[in-house]
Amino acid sequence: MVDESATWLDEISWNSDGLVPAIAQEQGTGKVLTLAWMNRESLSLSIKEGRAVYWSRSRRKLWRKGEESGHVQVIKEVRLDCDKDTILLIVKQEGGIACHTGRQSCFYQKLTGNKWQVVEPVLKDPSEIYR
Amino acid sequence: MVDESATWLDEISWNSDGLVPAIAQEQGTGKVLTLAWMNRESLSLSIKEGRAVYWSRSRRKLWRKGEESGHVQVIKEVRLDCDKDTILLIVKQEGGIACHTGRQSCFYQKLTGNKWQVVEPVLKDPSEIYR
Repeated sequence: MVDESATWLDEISWNSDGLVPAIAQEQGTGKVLTLAWMNRESLSLSIKEGRAVYWSRSRRKLWRKGEESGHVQVIKEVRLDCDKDTILLIVKQEGGIACHTGRQSCFYQKLTGNKWQVVEPVLKDPSEIYR
Repeated sequence: MVDESATWLDEISWNSDGLVPAIAQEQGTGKVLTLAWMNRESLSLSIKEGRAVYWSRSRRKLWRKGEESGHVQVIKEVRLDCDKDTILLIVKQEGGIACHTGRQSCFYQKLTGNKWQVVEPVLKDPSEIYR
């Protein structure tokens, strides 16, 4: 059993769905990789397992980042903001790929004029990542 | 009037409240400064004015970051993630202070053992920021 009774978890301002957004930033490069959501259990598990475990809002279940792809986010540091409603994870990104599209970061579209333009390369074909 | 009819705004997956989270990252240092929320109007205004304009969920009104403190976030780049439901702003942080507590970043609490520990210094007393 995960210890979900910890006081540090109580200090977090979970939203009405019991969630907080969690930003993952790559150690070393400083690249912002992903934003996903955590509930109390997933954050507990993240600390216990030393890897990012999120709550998938679409699938309504725990999501161990990298469980299929191997692209695990190993947690190096956990930060909380002043309002206590957002988490920042400093991570080592296994495989150097955080995005399901095969890119380093999920934030690969840049507003250019009045268009979203893809500005980051696909490092690995998704069909090779998710076999 | 702000042009809120732009197609690039339609491509964003606004949540049921018409909002998306927007991460601000400092250009140069790569520091993650803040996470705040934007609606369609605030994002339009951000682009138009070249500075971060958020939607304050607590005050239920537009919030021009730095309107009181002078700690404006000048927008250098706008990114959108793969799910099109999170914005990443690359900004120049005026005054080098993003947090209302007078710290560079809002993410100044670090999980250390089972406690949130303050690990970033106050650069300017809030009473001097908000006169």
